[in-house]
Amino acid sequence: MTFTTLPRLSATALALVLSAGAVHADDIAEYMDFFEPLPYLPPIPADNTMTPEKIELGTMLFFEPRISGSGVISCATCHNPALGWADRIPRAVGHGGQVGERNTPTVLNSGFLESQFWDGREPDLEGQALGPIEADIEMNMTLAEAIERLKEFDIYHEHFSAAFPDDPDPINQQNVALSIAAFERTLNTPNSPLDRFLRGDVQAMTETQVEGMKLFVDAGCVACHNGPALTDSNFHRFELPGSTDEGRFLVTGDEADMFAFRTPTLRNVAVTYPYFNNGSVADLHSAVQLMGQQMLGQDFTDDELDKLVAFMHALTGEMPRVEIPALP
Amino acid sequence: MTFTTLPRLSATALALVLSAGAVHADDIAEYMDFFEPLPYLPPIPADNTMTPEKIELGTMLFFEPRISGSGVISCATCHNPALGWADRIPRAVGHGGQVGERNTPTVLNSGFLESQFWDGREPDLEGQALGPIEADIEMNMTLAEAIERLKEFDIYHEHFSAAFPDDPDPINQQNVALSIAAFERTLNTPNSPLDRFLRGDVQAMTETQVEGMKLFVDAGCVACHNGPALTDSNFHRFELPGSTDEGRFLVTGDEADMFAFRTPTLRNVAVTYPYFNNGSVADLHSAVQLMGQQMLGQDFTDDELDKLVAFMHALTGEMPRVEIPALP
Repeated sequence: MTFTTLPRLSATALALVLSAGAVHADDIAEYMDFFEPLPYLPPIPADNTMTPEKIELGTMLFFEPRISGSGVISCATCHNPALGWADRIPRAVGHGGQVGERNTPTVLNSGFLESQFWDGREPDLEGQALGPIEADIEMNMTLAEAIERLKEFDIYHEHFSAAFPDDPDPINQQNVALSIAAFERTLNTPNSPLDRFLRGDVQAMTETQVEGMKLFVDAGCVACHNGPALTDSNFHRFELPGSTDEGRFLVTGDEADMFAFRTPTLRNVAVTYPYFNNGSVADLHSAVQLMGQQMLGQDFTDDELDKLVAFMHALTGEMPRVEIPALP
Repeated sequence: MTFTTLPRLSATALALVLSAGAVHADDIAEYMDFFEPLPYLPPIPADNTMTPEKIELGTMLFFEPRISGSGVISCATCHNPALGWADRIPRAVGHGGQVGERNTPTVLNSGFLESQFWDGREPDLEGQALGPIEADIEMNMTLAEAIERLKEFDIYHEHFSAAFPDDPDPINQQNVALSIAAFERTLNTPNSPLDRFLRGDVQAMTETQVEGMKLFVDAGCVACHNGPALTDSNFHRFELPGSTDEGRFLVTGDEADMFAFRTPTLRNVAVTYPYFNNGSVADLHSAVQLMGQQMLGQDFTDDELDKLVAFMHALTGEMPRVEIPALP
């Protein structure tokens, strides 16, 4: 198995992957150049200013279960703050206990991704936010019903007016999406051992983690897992045992996208198990091994796996502290 | 409809209800004597010391969805901190979207109740805690499975050992119950307008609320809604339109208990709608009116209802601030 999607890699990534095996950077600074500390905020769209009022509203909506058919499922049900803002089960459980086809991606640092959902069918968080409300196996409520439901509460009228002061009729679908996206852009995890290491704190990572970081570069993992969120936000095809999900193909209809999925972020990967599009791999060793075999055509030794997994643990940052909102 | 359950009232409550209509206490201090400010903590069982370690573990378990059959339902799903630690839907939705027969009672101040569940089938929070885990329409996991699940996580071994240092095998059912109960005893709501009023802050309640408080005593509501949580924790029968739930009878088999339910706390009643055992009454005006008709044999006027409802709003205290735990 080789890089079936190599043509899709960016020029930089391609250069990296081609050079990595040969160069074997030997200076630690060279390795560090492959990584970026997490910025305090992700890119913010010009048309969605992050005001405190909007973030507060977005927090309420994120935790609001009354915009689901059952009345008990909110964004926070699957993107559970107690569980790394995901659910730690293989595939998402939604309305009526239905089990979806895919694993819940964490919301943490999702503002840094250049496409949303496993298949990248939405370009940004604004586009992502409304999907799960309407999905019949997730929250199962039409957006029209959700808007009517929100309008029943005086407090939502106040909060939407405060967040969108120029909008004469602010409780609408677009503003729900804008608010939730603004809130999600606050859910970042700074100060991981890697971040501190990159900033000069050479004691922040263990020796094994530093070895893992070097191997991560030398083996070529960094070809796809790069940038502040350690993902190229691009789509790559691989064979995941047990998965028949056609992935990106379902969006583009392009045969080249069959079984391709967006590279997931590796930030907080140690606390956002299980892994891959169907959550079928429970532990990080197995996940890294599978990636080595499928994407890099190599079987990592146990020693190499230990180093790489140690490095994965250095990608766990500080969890955002979000106070549970008081809903009306 | 009269007091079908009068013989069940305590002697004090009986004296109150019999005298209330006649006496018409005219001194505000006399009225205040009918109420108690919320103590900082509820009664604590001698065999369940409230250590910080146990409370921390109880917090984790309260938010832990992996002890449910689906992996996504925790205590906090129905007892949602964002929704007054209840769910604000008529009847609880649990495993596989099943709808139960009863409304979710709030956990707030539940340590002050002398019996648990609408039918009082458990005497205390320790007895209550495990029921919903096993109930097939709630979390739907056997306790044996739940214990095995918890044992999979190193962090739970650490936390159970810290909370129960003398127990050689601390991850067990009893300790789950003790921990959750200890956590729940922290979920109290002090400093409501009524509490501040009772402590001397005469401006804490509006004039209408004070009128409502007087009427609450004079009309006899206080006969059952008394004590720190404004409930006698006793069982009373009434006809709730649409309900066929046999209530306390299902526990005792005693015909006198047919359709009887435990008096709910009135603390935070304004934020713990909808009302009654099946959640069929959505607003406080209707709930108070129904109680007047059924329990007191009187039709409150609109003016009286306004005053009583205003007083209900004076029973909303400060919500406990609980940080969402980071689960393993």
